[in-house]
Amino acid sequence: MVGKTWITFLTDYGLENKFLGVCRGVMARIAPAAQALDVTHLVPRGDIRHGAEVFRQAIPFLPEAVHLAVVDPGVGTSRKAIVLVVGDNLFVGPDNGLLIPAANELGGPDEAYEISNSEFYLKNVSYTFHGRDIFAPVAAHLAAGVRPAEVGPALDIERLVRLPAPVRRRAGDVLHGEVMIEDRFGNLQTSLDSALLADAGIGHGSKLVLTFGGNTAVIPYVETFGSVDAGEPLAHIDSADRLAIAVNLGNAAERFSLHEGDTFSLQFG
Amino acid sequence: MVGKTWITFLTDYGLENKFLGVCRGVMARIAPAAQALDVTHLVPRGDIRHGAEVFRQAIPFLPEAVHLAVVDPGVGTSRKAIVLVVGDNLFVGPDNGLLIPAANELGGPDEAYEISNSEFYLKNVSYTFHGRDIFAPVAAHLAAGVRPAEVGPALDIERLVRLPAPVRRRAGDVLHGEVMIEDRFGNLQTSLDSALLADAGIGHGSKLVLTFGGNTAVIPYVETFGSVDAGEPLAHIDSADRLAIAVNLGNAAERFSLHEGDTFSLQFG
Amino acid sequence: MVGKTWITFLTDYGLENKFLGVCRGVMARIAPAAQALDVTHLVPRGDIRHGAEVFRQAIPFLPEAVHLAVVDPGVGTSRKAIVLVVGDNLFVGPDNGLLIPAANELGGPDEAYEISNSEFYLKNVSYTFHGRDIFAPVAAHLAAGVRPAEVGPALDIERLVRLPAPVRRRAGDVLHGEVMIEDRFGNLQTSLDSALLADAGIGHGSKLVLTFGGNTAVIPYVETFGSVDAGEPLAHIDSADRLAIAVNLGNAAERFSLHEGDTFSLQFG
Repeated sequence: MVGKTWITFLTDYGLENKFLGVCRGVMARIAPAAQALDVTHLVPRGDIRHGAEVFRQAIPFLPEAVHLAVVDPGVGTSRKAIVLVVGDNLFVGPDNGLLIPAANELGGPDEAYEISNSEFYLKNVSYTFHGRDIFAPVAAHLAAGVRPAEVGPALDIERLVRLPAPVRRRAGDVLHGEVMIEDRFGNLQTSLDSALLADAGIGHGSKLVLTFGGNTAVIPYVETFGSVDAGEPLAHIDSADRLAIAVNLGNAAERFSLHEGDTFSLQFG
Repeated sequence: MVGKTWITFLTDYGLENKFLGVCRGVMARIAPAAQALDVTHLVPRGDIRHGAEVFRQAIPFLPEAVHLAVVDPGVGTSRKAIVLVVGDNLFVGPDNGLLIPAANELGGPDEAYEISNSEFYLKNVSYTFHGRDIFAPVAAHLAAGVRPAEVGPALDIERLVRLPAPVRRRAGDVLHGEVMIEDRFGNLQTSLDSALLADAGIGHGSKLVLTFGGNTAVIPYVETFGSVDAGEPLAHIDSADRLAIAVNLGNAAERFSLHEGDTFSLQFG
Repeated sequence: MVGKTWITFLTDYGLENKFLGVCRGVMARIAPAAQALDVTHLVPRGDIRHGAEVFRQAIPFLPEAVHLAVVDPGVGTSRKAIVLVVGDNLFVGPDNGLLIPAANELGGPDEAYEISNSEFYLKNVSYTFHGRDIFAPVAAHLAAGVRPAEVGPALDIERLVRLPAPVRRRAGDVLHGEVMIEDRFGNLQTSLDSALLADAGIGHGSKLVLTFGGNTAVIPYVETFGSVDAGEPLAHIDSADRLAIAVNLGNAAERFSLHEGDTFSLQFG
């Protein structure tokens, strides 16, 4: 665990201000040999659920690293700051559910520690910028060889804050799901995956009856966008192995008034 | 060609999602010693012509590298994935014309290979994210020392897909051109360059009669923006050695309803 | 001063074009071992005052480096290009006031040089892209070990261009200030800091009477956003130690029609 090479970084800071540069500066001063890898800094502001899902989908492809993630609407409240040991990776961020789905993707946290040793903080800690004052310096110290147990006391993994589980279940010939990520093109990535569809016996060419908020639409389950005409809706397994609802050369979110966090049902068979 | 240090990267992925971070993660795992240099990831979605022009203008200033470029609206179709050997550089991307103008800027491709050896892919290849599953890992393997001929069979350079050549010719005292790049300020970079203007005997201070879609405007050819009053149009040679049409402190695209891909003529003399 | 490791970079170039990638490419060719750290490239176009303030706030957290900053609306005019020696740091940019506040944050410039030795430029210098043609190559040569005195003649530090000092003074029981940075959420960071407030005896819980352009509003001075109800205005010391005017879960700039560069007064006591 000594001398991690990579520090990955995911936030909702945006790119038009100094926040990202300042955090990278803090880390460069403490761990100059660590290599930087930015996942994204455009998570919608304060949207823990969205950030957690992006982090979960990215983690299998990231190198062994100190993974720093900060989407922290509770900064300045009593929410804890934590380090998770996840195999050969270390996760650093707020204890608000942001880190858990990604940790679970790698088999779950092995150990958890509360960040409380101010020896590893910047000298003056502000009310609102713990990314700069606590999380970035702690991540850099870990990358430089500090052991996780040095940052503070061990925590009970079972008592870490967790987000509500996404809706994702089968009831007879109906699947219940939730929109996890709506992208800027209006594509709707859901909580359902290929295993769930295979288990339900749904194959390419099936018609799915999408119901939500009193509306209903019939959507073909196909391999890819090109399987339907321009302007036509489709459901397909996307590159994250999730069922996504889209409109070929169109905007599914607008077409169906269906958005991130909304639940829906899919009738099949 | 062994052990390239740099991997440059140009895409239309945007920055608000995980795509860029995931591709850089895939490369970090395979070629941890390679250095990252991002050209841009905000090419308009699916706009091969725009991406090819940005890549062409950037390449003379980039270090010797594996240059990865992915603007790939044909992902999932039969378009090939290719590696070009261009002097001491390697180009990786789809065979859709994206790589050729930049390769020609460096003297043209010396060799071309079709990427088909799945030994260098990620284990599971999705329908839609070949950047992550094929292009990034192949680029990283090349940076780590794999020889281009190992990725697949040689291709005939003459049969690579090429974009239509931009309109760019002189007919008597008229130059015919095309808008190549419209920037967010409405500046219009054209296909005409300083050599073509010099050849036509057009010097600073000349009046150019711009004609397009039935409209006509008289525009002075000057050294720089400050040569005309605020709100006045001008034509000048920009930092890419291209004739650009602009409005001083204004928006030429709106003023003239002239946009990327439009053709025009310039009468002089 | 030989062999600086880091080159930090701040500009108004935007991210949707090739400018940043090209400048990083130029530097990679000259100083391949230097490490890149980007502060931001989304300073509002040509806004020297904004860029200088962002740079000033970031500099205490950046590593010892060659710091390259380019917000340069005067490119192509007679404004000088300069290198400042600031302790163990080197600052590179235009002589338009952009670098001075950050240099002062570190104790002020020790030496200043005019960049004029074209040996360190790219071969062809354009009218409008001195970032690529002059500033980036000079910064990279400095990072690779060139001494500042080699880039050109020494300048009198007192005669460097300086921005007007921000409004920031106390007159009896009134503080006069200026909005320095308006962020995308409408938070207004001012020129006043915690020391000035403490000196005036203003403590948390005080009511401040904000006056500007004929308008008046009473705003509580509190520790943080959560100290007031949603939709209510507040004044607090932000993470840059500046008094900021905000609306909890709202937009202060819209609410008060108060914007970057505007002056105001705060009556207390």
